[in-house]
Amino acid sequence: MNIEIVNTGSELMLGRVLNTHQQWLCRRLADLGHVVTRQVAIADDGRKIQGAVAEALARADLVITTGGLGPTSDDLTRELIAELLGKKLIENTNVRAHIENFFAKRNRARPAKTSVENFVPEGALVFLNQNGTAPGLAMKLEPNLFRADKKSSWLVMLPGPPRELRPMFDDAVAPLLKRAFAAEIFICRTLRTTGIGESRVQELVESDLQPFVKRGLEIGYCARPGAVDVRLTASGTAAEKLVRAGEAVVQKILGENIFGFDDDEIENVVVKLLAQNKKTLALAESCTGGLMANRITDVPGASEVFIGGVVSYANSAKEKFLGVRAESLAAHGAVSEVVAREMAAGAREKFGSDFALAVTGIAGPGGGAADKPVGTVFIALASAHGVEVKKILNVWERATFRPVTATQALEWLRQTLSA
Amino acid sequence: MNIEIVNTGSELMLGRVLNTHQQWLCRRLADLGHVVTRQVAIADDGRKIQGAVAEALARADLVITTGGLGPTSDDLTRELIAELLGKKLIENTNVRAHIENFFAKRNRARPAKTSVENFVPEGALVFLNQNGTAPGLAMKLEPNLFRADKKSSWLVMLPGPPRELRPMFDDAVAPLLKRAFAAEIFICRTLRTTGIGESRVQELVESDLQPFVKRGLEIGYCARPGAVDVRLTASGTAAEKLVRAGEAVVQKILGENIFGFDDDEIENVVVKLLAQNKKTLALAESCTGGLMANRITDVPGASEVFIGGVVSYANSAKEKFLGVRAESLAAHGAVSEVVAREMAAGAREKFGSDFALAVTGIAGPGGGAADKPVGTVFIALASAHGVEVKKILNVWERATFRPVTATQALEWLRQTLSA
Repeated sequence: MNIEIVNTGSELMLGRVLNTHQQWLCRRLADLGHVVTRQVAIADDGRKIQGAVAEALARADLVITTGGLGPTSDDLTRELIAELLGKKLIENTNVRAHIENFFAKRNRARPAKTSVENFVPEGALVFLNQNGTAPGLAMKLEPNLFRADKKSSWLVMLPGPPRELRPMFDDAVAPLLKRAFAAEIFICRTLRTTGIGESRVQELVESDLQPFVKRGLEIGYCARPGAVDVRLTASGTAAEKLVRAGEAVVQKILGENIFGFDDDEIENVVVKLLAQNKKTLALAESCTGGLMANRITDVPGASEVFIGGVVSYANSAKEKFLGVRAESLAAHGAVSEVVAREMAAGAREKFGSDFALAVTGIAGPGGGAADKPVGTVFIALASAHGVEVKKILNVWERATFRPVTATQALEWLRQTLSA
Repeated sequence: MNIEIVNTGSELMLGRVLNTHQQWLCRRLADLGHVVTRQVAIADDGRKIQGAVAEALARADLVITTGGLGPTSDDLTRELIAELLGKKLIENTNVRAHIENFFAKRNRARPAKTSVENFVPEGALVFLNQNGTAPGLAMKLEPNLFRADKKSSWLVMLPGPPRELRPMFDDAVAPLLKRAFAAEIFICRTLRTTGIGESRVQELVESDLQPFVKRGLEIGYCARPGAVDVRLTASGTAAEKLVRAGEAVVQKILGENIFGFDDDEIENVVVKLLAQNKKTLALAESCTGGLMANRITDVPGASEVFIGGVVSYANSAKEKFLGVRAESLAAHGAVSEVVAREMAAGAREKFGSDFALAVTGIAGPGGGAADKPVGTVFIALASAHGVEVKKILNVWERATFRPVTATQALEWLRQTLSA
């Protein structure tokens, strides 16, 4: 099954906006068992929109467009696609009533501009917009004359604003696709690892996965800051079995380096494990500058397990807030095993938490020395069993150094909580 | 000039990763004076990659591919493009030495798999990777036989990880493009504002900009969490003059709401202003959970002005680390003017800083009450002149609430430092 997404919007091409539709739609479609074949973004320009949609229709069983359904002068998609398909635009009374009601409920006069939204290509299915005015549209081209084989295709047009597109997809498009493409089966499972490089991960697992690859399992590797994803996919009737078998192989080999699956992030896993164990956490951050606290507090429910943290950038803050001794700083420097140890112990004691993680290191580009080069990091973990410290060399530029270091610290706690 | 971007990566098509390359590259290219015509994303699949690159080469003066240059089995771009162009892959000794040095510096054995990265298509320009192993590549197709007119085109291949791609683009590709496409002129200037909504910004400036629009100035508005960008663009020989004139108009009208230009972020401006004024900052964060500290410490040079921060998630942490009084918490609640005031005063005193910002609020979805609905925020700013507190209602979902609130607090400090 061939699926193509066409995103329209001049702001996309100027790089002023991130295209979140691609990821969101691809993910929703993958969850429904469909992999998107191609996604294209183009400006709000009549000739380009018609060209891109015609090209997509020549290849795809399903084409989804986003944007260009609104009332302003740069909203061109509905008119251009109707013209491309040789369909007339006809006023739809349900749509008109829905939009009039939308404005009436908000005590606002309906702007004259929005009347174009009443008109839909003849024969189109209409998805009323629960969070805006412009309706979504779907058409089955049967036959699809853009395809060489003239087989049928679906064309779905969705409004651009995410708060309109997302519920419309879930409420109206997903059920339509389930009916229209019931025969397709596809399974995807991602195992998220940390602590091993991408090529080493592949070396470790590929030969044992080979028998399943021969039977149709596909493997993908994706390196991220501090983590490597192993993605197992398969389609057809044996899909579920193949993916499960592959997963068992990877689990056996990479075992404790797997911190989660699919959409898991280390911080979510850590918060869940802390809650399950009824334990609390405090943080003492130097070189990570609040990133660990920020990641932990991004997780809903973090307030049940996270007491607080100190971003102790200056030495004075390490002394005053964490009880690090001035002699330790003078004798060993802020980036040292001794100071990391005192930061973690101090954070645990002062916040009164079960665990405390402390990080001190040299993010660079400046600040390195022969015995402590840029990238030197000390991570300390304090618990009821005392304080342990790890020394790590993270040779990354500043923007990567920080998430990698935060991931290593959180991963240490995850392994401790999982043990 | 026609520019196309081809993003490869199966994880993109599965929706597991957000495609940040599109925005980043489009923006950088726009800043260099070039607007991207089309962007396409496809899976790591040989036939699809060759097809998409061939289609792009048939239309474009410049094609940029991302991803697929690494050492694992799903990294196919280099081989497939060499095959498409009928070029042999030849071992490059500079690349080999660079990669060997990369692993040696990290005291790691070079994995055998990475040897494929030594090989580059014959005649290609090589960009050594300062933050990874796979080199970037550029080739001038002269003539470009994929084009009907046989004119020449550039093909640039960049590695997928953002920490490798971004510096490589800035250091090597941008200078190449400046030389290769010197004849094109396009000027883009973005004025970044905060504190006014998007449609109000437009109402305020559009009539005074009208005379310049008639002469070819284009205006774009872009709403972001807590900020609105006004983008002025023009092309041709009068471009520079038109954009400067438009900028003067917007400056005059929006004045103090403009916090920066182009890629400025509020935190960069704040760090710069603190350094210029030789002042220091401390933070006390509740609902922003370390995001402000993280944004401030992301700025190179932050250590000169930022002493530290407390993420006081639990009430006990507010008392112990910031000296908030138990009676204040009991009488007014953690989200209150009194507690915000005590947090800021406590942070300033305990860290010994010139300024302290404190934030306490209800991010939601739970925790709201009739007199303090979800979205209620108190921001306090402590300085030598005492403590001031602002109450704000930020009705946004959790993921937007936090950056908007952090921006408001940092903007208050920016205006104070600019006054």
